[in-house]
Order: sequence, then structure tokens, then C-alpha cells
Amino acid sequence: MTPTAGVRASDLDTPAILIDLDIMERNLRKLSEYSREHGFRVRPHTKTHKIPALARKQIGLGAAGLTVAKVGEAEVMLAALPTDLLIAYPTIGARKLDRLMQVAKQTAVSMSLDSLFVAQQLSDAASTHGVEIGVLAEVDVGLGRVGVPPGDALLELIRGIARLPNLRLDGIAFYPGQVKSLDEEGQQALKKVEQLLDEILSDLKGAGVTPRIVSGGSTPTLFHSHQLPGLNEVRPGTYIFNDRNTMLAGACTLEECAASILVTVVSTAKAGQMIIDGGSKTFSSDRPTAGSEVSFGHIVEAPQAVFTKMNEEHGFVDLQKAGRKFGVGDRVRIIPNHICVAMNLHECVYGIRGGVVEQTWRVEARGKLQ
Amino acid sequence: MTPTAGVRASDLDTPAILIDLDIMERNLRKLSEYSREHGFRVRPHTKTHKIPALARKQIGLGAAGLTVAKVGEAEVMLAALPTDLLIAYPTIGARKLDRLMQVAKQTAVSMSLDSLFVAQQLSDAASTHGVEIGVLAEVDVGLGRVGVPPGDALLELIRGIARLPNLRLDGIAFYPGQVKSLDEEGQQALKKVEQLLDEILSDLKGAGVTPRIVSGGSTPTLFHSHQLPGLNEVRPGTYIFNDRNTMLAGACTLEECAASILVTVVSTAKAGQMIIDGGSKTFSSDRPTAGSEVSFGHIVEAPQAVFTKMNEEHGFVDLQKAGRKFGVGDRVRIIPNHICVAMNLHECVYGIRGGVVEQTWRVEARGKLQ
Repeated sequence: MTPTAGVRASDLDTPAILIDLDIMERNLRKLSEYSREHGFRVRPHTKTHKIPALARKQIGLGAAGLTVAKVGEAEVMLAALPTDLLIAYPTIGARKLDRLMQVAKQTAVSMSLDSLFVAQQLSDAASTHGVEIGVLAEVDVGLGRVGVPPGDALLELIRGIARLPNLRLDGIAFYPGQVKSLDEEGQQALKKVEQLLDEILSDLKGAGVTPRIVSGGSTPTLFHSHQLPGLNEVRPGTYIFNDRNTMLAGACTLEECAASILVTVVSTAKAGQMIIDGGSKTFSSDRPTAGSEVSFGHIVEAPQAVFTKMNEEHGFVDLQKAGRKFGVGDRVRIIPNHICVAMNLHECVYGIRGGVVEQTWRVEARGKLQ
Repeated sequence: MTPTAGVRASDLDTPAILIDLDIMERNLRKLSEYSREHGFRVRPHTKTHKIPALARKQIGLGAAGLTVAKVGEAEVMLAALPTDLLIAYPTIGARKLDRLMQVAKQTAVSMSLDSLFVAQQLSDAASTHGVEIGVLAEVDVGLGRVGVPPGDALLELIRGIARLPNLRLDGIAFYPGQVKSLDEEGQQALKKVEQLLDEILSDLKGAGVTPRIVSGGSTPTLFHSHQLPGLNEVRPGTYIFNDRNTMLAGACTLEECAASILVTVVSTAKAGQMIIDGGSKTFSSDRPTAGSEVSFGHIVEAPQAVFTKMNEEHGFVDLQKAGRKFGVGDRVRIIPNHICVAMNLHECVYGIRGGVVEQTWRVEARGKLQ
């Protein structure tokens, strides 16, 4: 991979992820200002960028710590020198927990979890290594993924955690991933989360539990986090780049999308269609989370073209409504549906300013599955 | 990544791809015997495994060369010492072609392509570096992806290639990817391909062109390749492992699936459901290519369970029809819909025999997008 600073973005080999640095920096500042205004603690989820240098930028702009999903990501993110790392995933297995304890000897570590099985393993590992691990009790606010139901199950989990040695109960965590957009339906779903959170906090108060951290939110609801009662921490990921899903959710504009994928037209053999050199190995096969049309990205140079289908190395673009033609060798930029999974597929990405490569970053935490 | 030979597969950290070596070796032998019986040249597509050590096994079993999609994959596969490498992708760009010419100084290289634009660039690079590159003219037999239409367009492409210096016209290539299964509809689609291929070969004969190589086929049709008139080369990829899509297509049995993904149950907080520690970052979000039910894999320990949904790190498994329960910490093996894209997501995979790790392979060509 030869290209370095000073190369024109349009001369890069394809497929390649381009990061518009001006937009990225605006996105970072916007969240920083919003969270300062509302007094939120921010622990950005690094799964979106997977790059320690960008995590350092987030810390420089006031982030109180970082969030990761896997121990392998935590190990990589130590390079960003966070004072605090949240593993937002119930982590199981002696080898992984041993590795996590090594991380915990270098910075404060906490984990969100929803079972005493996981809490017990974590407590055992922490005791063996003589470290203290913070814990957020995960509560389900409607997505039905991880998280115990509100009510007795939550209280039981919290009391169980509090009894375990070397664990420190920090508060609660939730993820309202069912709020997919900010349309009327989404607003109603958000309203339900607000009510539920109110009940949860009043339950906890009644039981004499005061969560120091109430951590939650999601990409579409990020800048509505101040509506959520009691919330004092957000863990946003996608906001640094945004993507087509964020746009479709009504949670950002096209001008706020910092990441696009540069591709080359490799075939126009079939009329009304072009084949580009990026498919599921470049974009991921993630479909849009909102809307009914299946399309795998927004084509900047031809917004009316539809990215209808993909194989691993081939993207099929329907040009019938594109209003323009392309030839073999032409290049286009495409905003992917889901930038987090796309980043995970690339060895490196290019930071661009004024059409020129300013930075080349290795995606250091890509593929850290364990 | 600590696990090595001798570790019990069930003790590996998850998620992890396990390769059943007995099944893999049977799959390799089956293709070797079939191709010998019918006199086919085999250039296995290494995109499925992405591991030079496995490419060497394929060569050892009689493969005449290897197939790749990208120059970066060709560079990695040189380690398997192939006498012949086919780039089955129209490759564009001076830097990439320069790299390809370095490969061509170490082994015979050919490319399938469908435009004179690509052929001209390839010829220029080959002339500059003083090497000869073989070319297969890609013809579309119904998928509508790459490939010129049969008839005049194909003849024009072939004649154009033949005129370009340092290119050697080897024959034609096609990919009947529209034949999705071996059910009645699939058989009819295959019949159409047979007829079309007959016409193409008779057209070429009429024009005085004798293709030395007629290269084609697809995973579902692999063991029906002898029905395709004139075919003398196959480039199969998936057959080494097979996957759920191959099963759904009726082209392999469960007992012929060599690759599965070991995952751990991380939450059972919601009744009738379990959450596993593998989602789109582990399996890819590829849906089944056949059938109407959306499920992301076949769960070996609970075939009636349905893998309904995934986020990046979470798999949602509906257990309502599973006939058994699972607890947090339990492990299951899942046969993914599409093994090629799953392999691309893992840093390494484990070769298992008798329940014990015999080999750990790095997926050396993963993420080679350029």
C-alpha cells in the first residue's frame, strides 16, 4: 500500500475509504459542544473508526473515556491512553478475562453485563489479579437484545453485582436500538423509552439504589439524549463519520457524512447498469435500517442511481434513473449504509482535505473478534 | 491469539472458525476425482479460504493453477508456488497493473476481462515490463454482471484482444451465477446456459476462433459441469468447505460442510431467545441465496432454532422451535450462509480433527481489496 500524504484522493487505488477531515472535525466538535451544554459524560464507542489516533482526538475534545465491544479492541485502544475503558459487552471465558485484567492494570476498566454468570466470572478474574472493575447493569428498554427486563430482574442483578468482590457497581446501561429513525414512529418509540427510564429510575430510588452512571442512547437519538430522564452518559460511535443509515434515519444531512468509499467502474457491458469494484467485501452486505428500498449506498456523483445488488467483489448499480452515463475506468464515491462494518473490512483509510491525502490510518482494531 | 495444536476445539475462545479436516480433505478429493474423470483443468478460486497452505493442498491434488480476484490476493498466493495464476477480475489502474507485472515475472498470469479498455491497459503494462499475459474473454451467459453479450460483441472483444501486443488470447470465461440451486427452476436455468454455450461455441467456430480454454461453472452447478458443452476448465471456490447456501441449493449435504463458527451464548435475558457472541462482524450479513426464510446460519446443536437477526457483535437466535434450552456460557457451532465472506472477517481459523486443534492458519489474503 504505497499512497501517502500529498497524493490526490482521486488517484488512490480503489476501493478505498476516504474520510473528509473537515466534516469529521465538525462532527466531533458538534458532539463535544452538545455534551458540554447538557453536562453529559461521553465515552465514544470506538467500533466505528477502530483507530487509536481518532480515539485520541475524541479524548482531546473532552471524552471521559472510550467504549469497546471486545477485549482485543481494548488492547488496541490502550494506545490512545484513555483514563477509562468500558467493555460494552458481556465478556465470557478465562483467557479473555485474563487479557482484560492486564488491560485493567493499565487503565480503569468497566463492563456492562446482564447476568450474574458473567458478573461472577468477572469478579473471579478481578480477585485473582487484585484489580477493581466497574460494572454497569444492562437493562432492556425495548430492543430485546441484551439487558434484563426492568423491575425485579434488574434489582436482583444489581444486588448480585454489589455482593461480588472486586466489582464496583457504577450504574446502569441501556441501548434503545429499536428507535430506528426520527420520523413520527421513531418519536413515539423514543417517548416510550423516556417513560420506561422514568419508571426504572423511580424503582431504583424506591429500592435505595442511586446509579452514579446512567449510560445510554443510540445513533438516531444522539442529539435528543437530553430528553432521556436521568441520563448522564452517552457512548456514541457513528457520529464521527455518519453514514447512509444515519441520513435515512433523519439524524444527519448529506453534508455531515464524512466517510465515502471510492470505487472504479469495471464493466458497463450490460446496458443501463455499471459494475463497480466494491461489493460485500468492501461495503459489507448490511441493508438500510430504515426505508423499504434495498440499496447499498448513496452514490455522490449520481444520487438517483441505485446500488441494487452486490457479490463479494462486484457492486451492481442501476443507472436507469441516474441521468448520466459512466465509462469503464470512471470513479465514483459512495456513502455506505453502515460505516462501522465497512471500516472493519479495510486495512487502512485515507484522511482527505482539499482533495489531497493528509493522513493514512491503519484500521488497527479491525477484525478483533475476541 | 494463543491457542495452538493440541487444544480442544471446545476450549477455543469464541467466535472462531473451525475447519473439520476430515470433511475438508474429502471435499478436496471429491473434486479432484470428478475433474480427472471428465478431463477438466481445475483452477480453484482461493477467495474461499484465502490461505496459501490450503492452495498448496489443492495444487497437490492436481489443480493446474489458482484463481484470485485481486492483485493483493495474487501476491499472497505466490507463497503456494502456483505455476499459473488467473485474475478473474477486470483489473484497472497503473499501480495495480505494475504490481501484477511483478507477479507475472514469478509465474504465468492471465486475466478474464470484458472490455478493450481493460485489455489495452493490461497490454500496455505487459509491454512495458516485457511479459506475456494470458486473457480470457468474459461472456455473459445470463447473470448480467460482467461479460459481453454473446454474438458480435464477443467476437469484437476477442479480435481486439488478439491485436494487442503482449496479450495471448487463451479462450473464454463465463459465470452462470443466476443458477441458484438444483431444483426444477435451477435445472431449467442450467439448460438455458447449455444451449447458449452451444451457440457461443458454434459462433466462434464460424468465425475461425478456437478457444483453447472454456472456463466456467458455479458452486451449485459444479458437479454438473460435464453437462456444459465445450467446458474444459472449472474455477470452484466454495467446494473446499461448503456452506449453508450450498446446502440450500441442494449441492451438498450437511455432512459435507467442513466449516462452522463456534460461538458462546452471552445472554438469555429475553425468553425464547439467546444472544450469541457473533454477528455481522463474524458471519457477514449475507442472507441465504435460496429459500425465503431469512436466517443467518444452521445451528448444529439445534437445527430448528432460527438465527433471525444480527448486529455487529450480537446474533439473535429464536429458540421457540429449538426443542432445547441454552444457558449463558454454552457454546454452539453454526454453519454460515456464505463461508467466503466469513473467512474474510477472521484473522485466523482452526483445523480440527477428533475434536482437537491440529492446525492454526492465518487468513493471509483477507481484506486484500486492491
